[in-house]
Amino acid sequence: MSKKQRSFCYHPLFILSMIITSFVICKPTTAGQWIDLTHDFSSETVYWPNGDTFKKDLIYDGETEKGYYYSAYSFSAPEHGGTHVDAPVHFAKGRRSVDQIPIDQLLGDAVIIDVSENALKNRDYLIIVDDLKKWEAQYGKIQEQSIVLLKTGHGKFWPDLKKYMGTDKRGNAAIPDLHFPGLHPNAAEWLVKERRIKSIGIDTASIDNGQSSHFGSHRILSRNDVPIFENVANLDQLPATGIFLIALPMKIKGGSGAPLRIVALISDE
Amino acid sequence: MSKKQRSFCYHPLFILSMIITSFVICKPTTAGQWIDLTHDFSSETVYWPNGDTFKKDLIYDGETEKGYYYSAYSFSAPEHGGTHVDAPVHFAKGRRSVDQIPIDQLLGDAVIIDVSENALKNRDYLIIVDDLKKWEAQYGKIQEQSIVLLKTGHGKFWPDLKKYMGTDKRGNAAIPDLHFPGLHPNAAEWLVKERRIKSIGIDTASIDNGQSSHFGSHRILSRNDVPIFENVANLDQLPATGIFLIALPMKIKGGSGAPLRIVALISDE
Repeated sequence: MSKKQRSFCYHPLFILSMIITSFVICKPTTAGQWIDLTHDFSSETVYWPNGDTFKKDLIYDGETEKGYYYSAYSFSAPEHGGTHVDAPVHFAKGRRSVDQIPIDQLLGDAVIIDVSENALKNRDYLIIVDDLKKWEAQYGKIQEQSIVLLKTGHGKFWPDLKKYMGTDKRGNAAIPDLHFPGLHPNAAEWLVKERRIKSIGIDTASIDNGQSSHFGSHRILSRNDVPIFENVANLDQLPATGIFLIALPMKIKGGSGAPLRIVALISDE
Repeated sequence: MSKKQRSFCYHPLFILSMIITSFVICKPTTAGQWIDLTHDFSSETVYWPNGDTFKKDLIYDGETEKGYYYSAYSFSAPEHGGTHVDAPVHFAKGRRSVDQIPIDQLLGDAVIIDVSENALKNRDYLIIVDDLKKWEAQYGKIQEQSIVLLKTGHGKFWPDLKKYMGTDKRGNAAIPDLHFPGLHPNAAEWLVKERRIKSIGIDTASIDNGQSSHFGSHRILSRNDVPIFENVANLDQLPATGIFLIALPMKIKGGSGAPLRIVALISDE
């Protein structure tokens, strides 16, 4: 190799361009902005009408006799309320409990499928395969092992029970009055079989819509080991693609679900 | 530029070497192995002797009358037990509650400081500035905004109360019998002021040792807005450096702390 050949490759502009290329190709995933997709747990947190709600009880708050400040609380809740995950065992006997979900299924690249135009016109809207195909026509095929987040636009109604759930009544009598959008079981089946997604989330209280009585999408997803994130917040702050998602549940041994802390990284570009 | 100059830079071997270099320089942070640093929540989970413990209650488990399987539970616990975070307001009045901790303080590059040789010989061991300086002499200066994980080696005793806490007695009478290692307040001050760490964790029940009665390290860290991760698991599975940590707590509004799901990514090399 002659000196002349070498000199071009060691030219500062060439080296600089290679460094820039390197960062564009494989920028570390922590460069960007974190968005919290979690509703907080408080007395306002939304739960299913026929169960308990979140409670926080004071243990201590104030100066101690030793002269320092101290505060502490205890809390209680059903697993399935607020921003939470459904483990496969919630609707499929013998399947993974929340502590058994592999970490790799709880983080990775995510896409947002926005059906809010239809779902805001019809509280009982069911997301169908055609909605997913329309999204793909615009953004490209949903990659295997993607996390899919369904944006119905109903997240903005949280925590107004009447607007978010369709009713602010409590008890079993309120169940027939639940009205919020969800995923059609055929579309759940398609996402599992045709796109092999790793997990799924939605900005409503349940992946099946409020009028569902047999929970077909829950059952299909659960028996295929797909964790379901429910009551996901702030989906309106995310772009359709280019999202890195982290969704870590409280590690309840044998739990059918658990409170979930879910955050998204969007790149600065 | 002559054709000859160009030809070398377009040579397949040169291009291949640049691609390899790119990946070595800036490999995405998700390439590697995830380690779960969280103890699960069960009836065995370790809590302070004078408070409640974790409880899980059955709501339903079995076939429903509609012909599908369903399981669900509710749970209750004090904030400060199991693998959990102390928010600054736990020991510093008016400071951030657990829902107010910025996400950026809950993830990032971490280092493991191993003091197990001393701490396994002395259950009341206090980690001093000299321990931290010795670590730096071997691995380099702790970078600003690092997450520091303190490995006392006592994590392996979980959930054996006598070995892990020093006593299996319950109630206020058991407090004087608590014996486990922790961080000396001078070392907490040094990490905050001299190294400006963003958060800290330990594989024992408390950042102050079992014999502490004034919780000096808690108070210093809390008034400097440093979250504390306690009862961290599996530190023996991590190298000293090259760790990316994610520690996401349950988002309890106004909470002084919360159950924490904490995971680490270690690179494959």
